[in-house]
Amino acid sequence: MPAYDPSNIFAKILAGDIPSHKVYEDADVLAIMDVFPQSRGHLLVIPKAPSRNLLDADPTVLSAVIPKVQKLAQAVMKATGADGFRLVQFNEAPAGQTVFHLHFHIMPVYEGTELGRHASGQKADDADLAALAKSIAAAL
Amino acid sequence: MPAYDPSNIFAKILAGDIPSHKVYEDADVLAIMDVFPQSRGHLLVIPKAPSRNLLDADPTVLSAVIPKVQKLAQAVMKATGADGFRLVQFNEAPAGQTVFHLHFHIMPVYEGTELGRHASGQKADDADLAALAKSIAAAL
Repeated sequence: MPAYDPSNIFAKILAGDIPSHKVYEDADVLAIMDVFPQSRGHLLVIPKAPSRNLLDADPTVLSAVIPKVQKLAQAVMKATGADGFRLVQFNEAPAGQTVFHLHFHIMPVYEGTELGRHASGQKADDADLAALAKSIAAAL
Repeated sequence: MPAYDPSNIFAKILAGDIPSHKVYEDADVLAIMDVFPQSRGHLLVIPKAPSRNLLDADPTVLSAVIPKVQKLAQAVMKATGADGFRLVQFNEAPAGQTVFHLHFHIMPVYEGTELGRHASGQKADDADLAALAKSIAAAL
């Protein structure tokens, strides 16, 4: 597995060099709206500690982050009224990883609506994402 | 969300009432081969503590379990020679949950091979699963 490359886009977002639709931030994680959402309310939880994916992550970081993923998923469900959600995390390009900094996808699912494709190139409307970020943050 | 129902199949496997292809077991988790694998080496990590899914899980259980998910994923990668893997966890039926006891899927991905469908009904060969379980356990 290649080493962690700090020039990835999530490292730049964590450093504040690129803007994002922030939902939550603390010492361990940043949670932002996915700009290429597979469904309405698709949230990304990004641990701040650098690792390429799950394989090279510090286990103590994982233990600190997963209860926050849970809390954020509960807020996504409350804010969106979704009928369920998928927690997904991709490791390496053949598995669908496109940004090589560990992150967890919370993808709300709505009865009767198929999930979109991962990183399909359909960028969401910024005003919609801003409104979703606000309502998920309010549900925390 | 409905309450946890202890009559689910994973509760019966945890109780030893139904056999499984066991890879790893300790006080917190049981890891078994998925009998309807979406790819070769598809592993399930089942926390022993009862919860329906991620939404009602005890956060301390999640913190204890996730480093074990990581270790098992590393072993799956080593044993199968996969090119990557997906960590997936389904919450509620519309999102694809079929057994209502929290579990994490580790799905190896092989370059050029599409993942099968979730719970498609294609049961794997028992001898193949037994051999995979043995080689993943040996890679731990």
